[in-house]
Amino acid sequence: MSDSALIDELKALLDDGKVLTDAGSLASHGIDWTKHFAPAPLAIAFPRSTEQVQAIVRWANERKVALVPSGGRTGLSAAAVAANGEVVVSFDYMNRILDFNEYDRTVVCQPGVVTEQLQNFAEEHDLYYPVDFASAGSSQIGGNIGTNAGGIKVIRYGMTRDWVAGLKVVTGSGELLELNKGLIKNATGYDLRQLFIGAEGTLGFVVEATMRLARAPKNLTALVLGTPDFDSIMPVLHAFQKELDLTAFEFFSDKALAKVLARGDVPPAFDTECPFYALLEFEATSEEVMEQALAVFEHCMEQEWVLDGVMSQSEQQLENLWKLREYISETIAHWTPYKNDISVTISKVPAFLRDIDEIVEKNYPDFEVVWFGHIGDGNLHLNILKPDDMDKDEFFAKCATVNQWVFETVQKYNGSISAEHGVGMTKRDYLHYSRSAEEIAVMKAVKAVFDPNGIMNPGKIFAV
Amino acid sequence: MSDSALIDELKALLDDGKVLTDAGSLASHGIDWTKHFAPAPLAIAFPRSTEQVQAIVRWANERKVALVPSGGRTGLSAAAVAANGEVVVSFDYMNRILDFNEYDRTVVCQPGVVTEQLQNFAEEHDLYYPVDFASAGSSQIGGNIGTNAGGIKVIRYGMTRDWVAGLKVVTGSGELLELNKGLIKNATGYDLRQLFIGAEGTLGFVVEATMRLARAPKNLTALVLGTPDFDSIMPVLHAFQKELDLTAFEFFSDKALAKVLARGDVPPAFDTECPFYALLEFEATSEEVMEQALAVFEHCMEQEWVLDGVMSQSEQQLENLWKLREYISETIAHWTPYKNDISVTISKVPAFLRDIDEIVEKNYPDFEVVWFGHIGDGNLHLNILKPDDMDKDEFFAKCATVNQWVFETVQKYNGSISAEHGVGMTKRDYLHYSRSAEEIAVMKAVKAVFDPNGIMNPGKIFAV
Repeated sequence: MSDSALIDELKALLDDGKVLTDAGSLASHGIDWTKHFAPAPLAIAFPRSTEQVQAIVRWANERKVALVPSGGRTGLSAAAVAANGEVVVSFDYMNRILDFNEYDRTVVCQPGVVTEQLQNFAEEHDLYYPVDFASAGSSQIGGNIGTNAGGIKVIRYGMTRDWVAGLKVVTGSGELLELNKGLIKNATGYDLRQLFIGAEGTLGFVVEATMRLARAPKNLTALVLGTPDFDSIMPVLHAFQKELDLTAFEFFSDKALAKVLARGDVPPAFDTECPFYALLEFEATSEEVMEQALAVFEHCMEQEWVLDGVMSQSEQQLENLWKLREYISETIAHWTPYKNDISVTISKVPAFLRDIDEIVEKNYPDFEVVWFGHIGDGNLHLNILKPDDMDKDEFFAKCATVNQWVFETVQKYNGSISAEHGVGMTKRDYLHYSRSAEEIAVMKAVKAVFDPNGIMNPGKIFAV
Repeated sequence: MSDSALIDELKALLDDGKVLTDAGSLASHGIDWTKHFAPAPLAIAFPRSTEQVQAIVRWANERKVALVPSGGRTGLSAAAVAANGEVVVSFDYMNRILDFNEYDRTVVCQPGVVTEQLQNFAEEHDLYYPVDFASAGSSQIGGNIGTNAGGIKVIRYGMTRDWVAGLKVVTGSGELLELNKGLIKNATGYDLRQLFIGAEGTLGFVVEATMRLARAPKNLTALVLGTPDFDSIMPVLHAFQKELDLTAFEFFSDKALAKVLARGDVPPAFDTECPFYALLEFEATSEEVMEQALAVFEHCMEQEWVLDGVMSQSEQQLENLWKLREYISETIAHWTPYKNDISVTISKVPAFLRDIDEIVEKNYPDFEVVWFGHIGDGNLHLNILKPDDMDKDEFFAKCATVNQWVFETVQKYNGSISAEHGVGMTKRDYLHYSRSAEEIAVMKAVKAVFDPNGIMNPGKIFAV
C-alpha cells in the first residue's frame, strides 16, 4: 500500500486534523533531545482517547506499520526517535488529569500530562509528586513511565516505578490491560505493570496512569559542601545518611560549577575553590534535626572530608543552591555533550570513578569532561563536551570508540550502562555489557508475547 | 521411569542424605499452613548450592517431573503444597547470609535465610529490615519474594518487592539469571526481577537475593485507639497521616481483641469497650512530633471518632500494645479459620466493608467472624472461625460457597482477591475476579517463556 493510502486510512481513525505530515511536524515530532539520528517518520498521529490508540495499534498490526510513542521528547537515548518511516503516536492531546483522591493520595493521569503539571497539581493539594529532574517542565508522565525516570530525589523517593499505582496499557496486539488498579497490596500473580515501566514503549503504550503522591516535605534545607577530592564525598554521604533521611545527595565537579557560574545568574555557594562539590538536602523538621545536621557537617570538616560549606537559611537560598546543580544539564547543552549515564552500587563508586577517569584522560585528552550526578544512587553522568571547532559527526565517532572501554569498566564493576536514560537506540548495541545473552533472549521472548508483530517501537532496546 | 528410579537419579545430583522420602518428611515438607490439601510429594530434595538447584531443574525438564519450591512453609494459599507426586525443593540448607555492605545497606542472602534472621542481622548492624509479619520467625526470604510478602509495616516501607535490590534465579529451563545486581538505578530494558517477585515459584526459583536495609527507626511509639464504629477509623487515619509519617496503621475488631485477651498473657490497652480498634505507630523523633501526635489524638476525641486511647510510654508498653494485634493470627489458628485476604483502595474501604459485612451476616449466621488487617494499605483479613463441633470438610465447603459473593464484591470495588497471601491453589479458581481474561492469557504466555515444559510449581496461580 502506498504511503498516501496508509495516511488516508490513519486519518480515518482519528479526529479531523489530528494526523500531520508536513515537514515541520515530522522534524519536530520525529526526534527527542538526542542529536544522533535524523527524523524520518511517515506521519504524526495525535489520538484523543484510549479507543483511538487501540484503533491505531490494530490498524498498525494489520498494515505492519511500526509505531513510535512520543511524549515530551526530552529523552536522551533516542527511544522516541522515528528514523525509519514509522507513525509517531503523540500523546500531546491526552494530557488531562482525570481524577484525584485525597484518601488514597492518587492522581489518575492521561499519558500526556507534563511532569511539572502533576507536581503543581500535587502542591495545590498540599501533597508532593517527588520524581523531579531537569526536563520536568516538558517531559510527560507516559514518557517517564516508559523510561522509569529517576532524577534528583531518588535517594529518598525512588524511581517513577515507585509511584505508579496502576496502569492502563494498550499492548502491541491492541488489547487494553488494566494493571493493578491503584491497589497497594495485590498478590494475584505476575505484576505485569512492572514490565511496562521502563519498557520504552516496546511492549505497549500507556494510556492512563494512576500516580501516587507523597506527604509534602517540610522545611527542605540544603547543604553545599566542597571536598578536597572525590573519595571524600563517600564518607560524607555515609556520615549524613546515618543521622538523617536525606532527600537528595548530588555531586558535581569544579568544571561543571564553573560553567554554571559563568552564566552570571547564580550566586556562588562560597568562595573556596574545590575540585568536587556535594549538594545534600533534608527536611529540617525540628531544631534537633538542624543541630544534628550541623554536628555532622562539623565532623566532616574536622575529618578534612570537607573544605568549606554552606547551609541554606531561606527558601531563596535553597533555590539558589539547587540552581548550581540543576542548571548544569541545560548549561552544557551548548557544547553538544556526549552523555554517559552510568551506575554502580554506591560502595564501588570511588574505585569505579578512578578507573573511568583514567580512561577518559588517556582517550579524551583534548576534550573537556564534566562530571555530575546522583551519587547517593551510584549514578554518574559523565559528559564529554564537543570542542567548538569540531564537526558533530567526527566528535560522536570519536566518543563512540571510547565507549567500549567505559562500558567494559561498567561491566567489570557489575554496573549499568544506562542508569536512568534508557537504552533506546543509543545504548542498544552495548546492552550486553549490562545484561547477559540469556536475559536479552528472554526479554525478546517477553516482547513477542505482548507485541507479536513487532510493531511497537521496533529497534529500541534491541535491534530489529 | 519408575518412582524409585527417578529418586535414584535425583539422589545422584545432591549431597548424600539430601533426598528424603520417608512418610514423615513427605508429610511435613509437602504442605504449608493451609489445611485444604493432603500432601503427596514424590520426594523432598535439599540442594546446598545454586549448581545443585540447576541440576535438579535440568533433570526435571528431562524427566518431566514437577517441582515445588519450599521455604518456611508458612504460606496461606497452598502455593508450596505438593499434592500430586512433585519433587519438593526445600531451601532449608541454603540458609546463609553471604555478604553485607554498610555503604550500600545491602545483605546478600541465600533463599533459606529466615526473615527474623535477616531482621536480627540488620539490627546487629544498626539497620532495619522492615518487612515484618506474624510468621517472620519461620518464613524464609525465598518464600517472601515468591509471595511478595507484606505485613504490618507496608504503609511506610512497602512490600518485599521494595527491598529486593538483586535476584539470582534459576528459570524453568535451568538457566541462571542474575537480575539487577543490587543497583539502585538501572534502565537497561525490562526489569525481569519484578516478574519473579510474587510469581510463587512458577517461573523459576530464587537462589540468591540482595536485600536492602533501612535506617533503624527511632523511638517507635504506638497508639491504640477505640472507635465507635468502623467508619470512624478512616478519618482517624487521614488525620494522623496528614501530620505524621506512620510506620503502621492496623485495625482489629472487638471479637479479635477478646480472643487475644482471653489468653491471659497480654494486658488490655484500656477499659472502654469499643467495636473497633486502630493501632498506629510512628517515630517520635522529637518532642515536637510527640506533641503533634497528641494534638491529633485530642482532635479525634473531640470529633468523637475515638472513644478512648492510649499512647506507649516505654519499649515494654509498645511491645504490649503490638501484642494485641500481632497475637490475633496465632490465637485464632485454634479455630481453623477460613481466611479471606482481600484489598481495595483505601478510600473504598468503608463502603466495601459494609457490603462484605452484609454478605457475611446473611450467609455465615452461625459462624464467628473475626476482622483485622492493615487498614492503612486497604488490606482486610476476614476470618471465619470453625465451630468446634463442625467437621473440617463441611466447614470449608460452606465457606467456599460464600466465597463467590465475597469475591463478586471485591470485583465490584476493583479490589484484589488476594492482597498478600498469594494465589497458590486456594485462590486459583477465583483469579478472574481480580484479573481479566486477557491478563491471565498474557501471564500464561509469560510463564511459557521461562518454563517451557511447565515443571515449575504447576497448578499454582493457574490450573494446569
